[in-house]
Amino acid sequence: MRVLGVDPGLALTGYGVIEAGTDDEVKTLAYAAIRTAAKTPLPQRLARLYDAFARVVTTYRPDVVAVERLYFGRNVTTAMNVGQARGVVLLCAAQHHVPVVEYTPAEVKQALVGYGNAAKHQVQAMVAAILGLPDLPRPDDVADALAVAVCHVYTARSLARWQGASSGAEP
Amino acid sequence: MRVLGVDPGLALTGYGVIEAGTDDEVKTLAYAAIRTAAKTPLPQRLARLYDAFARVVTTYRPDVVAVERLYFGRNVTTAMNVGQARGVVLLCAAQHHVPVVEYTPAEVKQALVGYGNAAKHQVQAMVAAILGLPDLPRPDDVADALAVAVCHVYTARSLARWQGASSGAEP
Repeated sequence: MRVLGVDPGLALTGYGVIEAGTDDEVKTLAYAAIRTAAKTPLPQRLARLYDAFARVVTTYRPDVVAVERLYFGRNVTTAMNVGQARGVVLLCAAQHHVPVVEYTPAEVKQALVGYGNAAKHQVQAMVAAILGLPDLPRPDDVADALAVAVCHVYTARSLARWQGASSGAEP
Repeated sequence: MRVLGVDPGLALTGYGVIEAGTDDEVKTLAYAAIRTAAKTPLPQRLARLYDAFARVVTTYRPDVVAVERLYFGRNVTTAMNVGQARGVVLLCAAQHHVPVVEYTPAEVKQALVGYGNAAKHQVQAMVAAILGLPDLPRPDDVADALAVAVCHVYTARSLARWQGASSGAEP
């Protein structure tokens, strides 16, 4: 299973591609940030984000795109800008026929650190440890993108084990 | 000049296409709402909005897309949903090489009613009067889309007159 995690933003969209095999190993294929310049008009910024994200999708051909469910900040302007970028990213996934899964920030923390109120640096340290990265991925948006991708791998594995145990219990 | 006004939303996107000639007349070519079903997964809702809006763009081939600059509400979840829809609409305009102009709600009210604090029903009544519509366009999002389109026509005309007067004053 190949998962493309993404943390959308207008100025900076973090993404990370990981591959989970049948064993417990998780391989990191790529992680980076897509940036758009503040001086570029908004529609063209969104078009550049779309084009760059589409290149990631066509290059790595993920089985699923994982993204955080909601932005819980209080700033309406920030939410609007995140929303515009998020809309473009989700549209791109839909147009490339890649299913999208969403997790709340608490679900991501729960999956990686074991409790939903974990601090950001704990999540980042777990991402680096799980993926065997030499350094913490930077900026935060890239670490968050990898975190939601790992969250999906762990959630899918738990589900598979549960279904396996469940079907195994039947006669 | 053909203007496509749009009021983006996830559940409902209002749009209106108007044509301004060299005289003061403004013709209404089309106005309607693009709806997406709440039960449809978000990425597919955004894809349907994109497809429907792209059909409007390719059918009417506007010279410009006009949209309100910012959502000034206080609800972050609403701003996120509006943002996602708005991102898809602006991306669609950029991908079809149609320039986008943005006006604040106050600018729209000022252009149509003459003062920036006009009530919503005053703006809607002016839209119907200016465009010679038999009824107020419904729902509100469609009236708002037509309003921002008319705002652009008026602003462009004022600018043209000002530039004409300015260049005429030169020897």
